Amino acid sequence: MSSLAIENIGLLVTNDESLGEGPLGIVRDASLVFEDDRVAAVERGAAEADERFDAAGRCVIPGFVDSHTHLVFAGDRSEEFAARMAGKPYEAGGIRVTTEATRAAGEAELRTLAAARRAEGLRAGITHLEIKSGYGLDVDSERRLCEIASELTDDVTFLGAHAVPAEYDGRADEYVELVCGEMLAACAPLARWIDVFCERGAFDADQSRAVLEAGRTAGLGLRVHGNQLGPGPGVQLAVEMGAASVDHCTYLDDADVEALAESDTVATFLPATDFSTRQPYPDARRMIDAGGRFAIATNTNPGSSNTTSMSFCIALAVREMGMTIEEALLAATLGGARALRRDDVGHLAPGARADMVVINTQSYIDLVYRAGVPLIRAVLMGGTEAWTSDPSPRP
Amino acid sequence: MSSLAIENIGLLVTNDESLGEGPLGIVRDASLVFEDDRVAAVERGAAEADERFDAAGRCVIPGFVDSHTHLVFAGDRSEEFAARMAGKPYEAGGIRVTTEATRAAGEAELRTLAAARRAEGLRAGITHLEIKSGYGLDVDSERRLCEIASELTDDVTFLGAHAVPAEYDGRADEYVELVCGEMLAACAPLARWIDVFCERGAFDADQSRAVLEAGRTAGLGLRVHGNQLGPGPGVQLAVEMGAASVDHCTYLDDADVEALAESDTVATFLPATDFSTRQPYPDARRMIDAGGRFAIATNTNPGSSNTTSMSFCIALAVREMGMTIEEALLAATLGGARALRRDDVGHLAPGARADMVVINTQSYIDLVYRAGVPLIRAVLMGGTEAWTSDPSPRP
Repeated sequence: MSSLAIENIGLLVTNDESLGEGPLGIVRDASLVFEDDRVAAVERGAAEADERFDAAGRCVIPGFVDSHTHLVFAGDRSEEFAARMAGKPYEAGGIRVTTEATRAAGEAELRTLAAARRAEGLRAGITHLEIKSGYGLDVDSERRLCEIASELTDDVTFLGAHAVPAEYDGRADEYVELVCGEMLAACAPLARWIDVFCERGAFDADQSRAVLEAGRTAGLGLRVHGNQLGPGPGVQLAVEMGAASVDHCTYLDDADVEALAESDTVATFLPATDFSTRQPYPDARRMIDAGGRFAIATNTNPGSSNTTSMSFCIALAVREMGMTIEEALLAATLGGARALRRDDVGHLAPGARADMVVINTQSYIDLVYRAGVPLIRAVLMGGTEAWTSDPSPRP
Repeated sequence: MSSLAIENIGLLVTNDESLGEGPLGIVRDASLVFEDDRVAAVERGAAEADERFDAAGRCVIPGFVDSHTHLVFAGDRSEEFAARMAGKPYEAGGIRVTTEATRAAGEAELRTLAAARRAEGLRAGITHLEIKSGYGLDVDSERRLCEIASELTDDVTFLGAHAVPAEYDGRADEYVELVCGEMLAACAPLARWIDVFCERGAFDADQSRAVLEAGRTAGLGLRVHGNQLGPGPGVQLAVEMGAASVDHCTYLDDADVEALAESDTVATFLPATDFSTRQPYPDARRMIDAGGRFAIATNTNPGSSNTTSMSFCIALAVREMGMTIEEALLAATLGGARALRRDDVGHLAPGARADMVVINTQSYIDLVYRAGVPLIRAVLMGGTEAWTSDPSPRP
């Protein structure tokens, strides 16, 4: 067993109220002790260990937990994005464009692209993430995407029900049968979760329920994409079926807020998506005040949110969704962990995974106060240095 | 004389319509030839030179020209920012907080802080910038700030009329006399510009006019902070006096838009400021459609915009102010140059300064499409490599 002391932490966010001040469990002038890949202790002042890492007075937070990504895809949709910014509305149909490119790509190319995106997310401070399939939409392609995803995370989500592929036009129910049958059988062994895009233009409430029930029978946990492009049944369905998370939640009516507040289902907000699709931002404040659980995720994908920057998502959640900076930071760490029903990530209490981020400043406030500035200084995963920046200009 | 060829540029933005397609003057599969610190040629395909820099198919743009910054200050206002995000309104009076910290700081500390911010901006792709004084507000302190600024740029702006300092409470006219007299005499030799914050709570139209007239008499060019916190006389005054730029322009009425459209005065939008102060975003689209000149700048300062990220400003200008991506990129390069009345920066035509940025992707669209992701790969200033990123994760 090897131990590592993270010393001289000016401000440590543990996300554990029993360890420090407030909901972020803040400890000042702290040290963290890791043993192998786990947190062993949180100390005030110095600590003993085999090796040392000097945080130089900076702020340390738990690594970001990104509970909603679509990392495995090929193709580029920057022209579609530019057109949208110039006035064209977002439509879910763009998923087909990426599906075509993804099906045409070789497995090695997809693996390389996904790994590059994972590395980019790591540099942004993301130490754990969920990855969905959903740009294959046939049995072999979906299985291939799940395989590639499973090489990067143990939180793989089977999302065969992302869109009805072109070859099933007008036969959505038949496609749902394929998803619930042969496709699920091929993908379930590689996945922990099943997800469905419950939205006008994608799958209706009955189709979505069928997909979720089939997934549950196959032993998968439930997730839902819902209420992104307008009011809809996604939130209610997710709560009714006990889904771990319902994601987007851009349009929430009174009944949705009430249902979320009385459930364990996490409302996962995707601020960069509302930014990139010119949707109105949801009123997260209202849902939080009602007592609902909440998370923030990047939704990295080529159509509606091509970013890996959790800091950017946090800044938007604060500016546009009514979260305080503390709530947004919690949402991007512990919130993501809850949305994935994990207690080993998203906090830095003893026993948790030794996943942490050093911010190149004295407070997490700067993630919003200094929005746009790359502030991730170092990232440790499982107690090992995974990335450090070199911010000094060359001579 | 030494020459350098930037080869294998997938997409080159020259900002010169005579050199390529559209208003960005785009050339594909291009090379740039620098001789000493200047652009010597733009070539299609390969080029000859003493040395070579491989752009590896990436996009190259002119370096950002940041025409509005307040880099020289001490102290932190992150707590004030956090309170504002939680609902407290922004007030111009916060300038006094920074003035107190800046007056108390030693010259060496101020120089170190300013240089670190300049280096951060360089990493964000800013190759030329304007720097204002304005946190000294007494003769010696203002002169000291101008001196430090002049070590970092030849576009120094004397902004003694940033706020009425506490010791002149209720005696604003007396303070204006000091600004126009002894303070201007001390600062003018170090500055190219004079600026005034023409806003309720700062200086009224008559006071602002007096400051600008005194500056003009001292040989300085004119800039105005105006129409930030509400409708006001700033824009009209700037146009009437032939100022190079009027900055903020958050509140523009019909007469303001008309005046700007008929003048050479550049409307400089500061998107990160509206983000950070929770102001409504201005309708830049309307001003652009009316035919006005426009720029985007960071307004780096501790109170209302503590960012050096021009990419973040561009993304906000597109999402929130109605600019197309092309207009926003022009605004952050050529627009900034116009706001500083310079023709040597902001474009990459022969004769211009060899200031360029390599974006770590194939198109400038990604500055918005991939918002939040640090995409600045390399920065050359005056033909010399000033910074390159190493985006590879460590093993």
